[in-house]
Amino acid sequence: MGRVTVRRQVLRISDGREIRRPDALAAEEPLELRVDGRALTVTMRTPGHDVELAHGFLQTEGVINSVEDVRTARYCDGTDEDGKNTYNVLDLALAAHVPPIERGVERNFHTTSACGVCGKAALESVRVRSHHDLTRDDTKVGVGTLLSLPHKLREAQRVFDSTGGLHAAGLFTAAGQLLAAREDVGRHNAVDKVIGWALMSGRVPLRGCVLMVSGRASFELVQKAAMAGVPVLAAVSAPSSLAADLAAEQGMTLVGFLRETSMNVYSGQSRVDR
Amino acid sequence: MGRVTVRRQVLRISDGREIRRPDALAAEEPLELRVDGRALTVTMRTPGHDVELAHGFLQTEGVINSVEDVRTARYCDGTDEDGKNTYNVLDLALAAHVPPIERGVERNFHTTSACGVCGKAALESVRVRSHHDLTRDDTKVGVGTLLSLPHKLREAQRVFDSTGGLHAAGLFTAAGQLLAAREDVGRHNAVDKVIGWALMSGRVPLRGCVLMVSGRASFELVQKAAMAGVPVLAAVSAPSSLAADLAAEQGMTLVGFLRETSMNVYSGQSRVDR
Repeated sequence: MGRVTVRRQVLRISDGREIRRPDALAAEEPLELRVDGRALTVTMRTPGHDVELAHGFLQTEGVINSVEDVRTARYCDGTDEDGKNTYNVLDLALAAHVPPIERGVERNFHTTSACGVCGKAALESVRVRSHHDLTRDDTKVGVGTLLSLPHKLREAQRVFDSTGGLHAAGLFTAAGQLLAAREDVGRHNAVDKVIGWALMSGRVPLRGCVLMVSGRASFELVQKAAMAGVPVLAAVSAPSSLAADLAAEQGMTLVGFLRETSMNVYSGQSRVDR
Repeated sequence: MGRVTVRRQVLRISDGREIRRPDALAAEEPLELRVDGRALTVTMRTPGHDVELAHGFLQTEGVINSVEDVRTARYCDGTDEDGKNTYNVLDLALAAHVPPIERGVERNFHTTSACGVCGKAALESVRVRSHHDLTRDDTKVGVGTLLSLPHKLREAQRVFDSTGGLHAAGLFTAAGQLLAAREDVGRHNAVDKVIGWALMSGRVPLRGCVLMVSGRASFELVQKAAMAGVPVLAAVSAPSSLAADLAAEQGMTLVGFLRETSMNVYSGQSRVDR
């Protein structure tokens, strides 16, 4: 555990000079999630906070809605060829009241019959429906608060990121207080980890909160935020077209290019207190 | 087609001033790939070069090995609710000699039986075996050539990226000549597009070539490069631990943090001519 960074030998060439030195790399390892004995998915992630990751993944995929929906979560106790537990397989058992999962199959290898509404069908197949109606969320966040978030996220990240290879996601209150920050080689995993943390803390839906991500905002991240009831999503970099469209459709406030002195607001501008 | 960027209205807040203006966003739309009538996967991509994307995806997933393995590739001619073709569904027919696909199911929703070698099994499940032995590839690339690539890739990218939201991948000769550059909201898609281009041009395995990516180097990207027989992978940003490990194992040269005056070489250092 705690394998957030890994040291590897590297040849550094700089301005014509060469040195060999150890370098810290962001750890990336596969995590297999098994639900009720069946392998559901394998995600490439940075080890640590795996139980949160699993909860966040299942919540944002629409499988679970509360921490009570998961009966147990534990690492598989099998060992690898060297007799060690890799901590790369997580076994989850869902509570009896949770309907069995069908989605994974549908989404990844679904069989469509007719193709009358082609593109629509493709988009529908990747879309998960949120229970949370953000249009009724009256969260307000000050411009100054938003502008302070990138620095706060970087401060939280600096503690353990020396690799330049980790994405960060942070959950903040509308007043700008950091609730939780998580890092991962995959930005969707970093978001799953903070949402999983929130779910396990009984905070979902995340009313009155801002989710801040260190990179870009994709369709997938907006969808995860919507599933967790997050009213404000802020990103250091650019959103995609579909991210902006989905945020508008969901009534979510989407902020992009959030830097120390400036930002772009793509949707839900009434939540930004100016 | 050509929907690489999309304009959306944005509220820009900068140093206390506000303006509303149209902003160019990187287009992101779902592409459903159907193989022999069955939906194989849906990927969120930037429209354009979809046939290359499909070829690259299938090649790096180990389904096809040459352009002859694909009999036809065409957009589904179905229409959406407005009677328009969305160009978001691509129908591919494989040649009769290509074995039917099993992998998609295995990888995304595979059922493991015993878990004797847990982590190993998880890693194996995401790994695709390459036919190309890179350890015999004697490509040499000069330090100066490598240092020139980020600028060349950015030049190629600048032509149509005004959004800040697109990843780029470029294929170069060992002498630093650009062969092809592609952009996408997903970095794996940008790589699939250039590899698909190479496959359709009869250039796979990509001996004597350098694949350059604008972002980080993950396990997945190293794997795609290995599947296409690329001896040198260079990234502007950090590699992950597993990317460095896989590159070393495959005999691939992996360069990270490639900037104008410096770079880190993580593996295959003998190919870097100094």
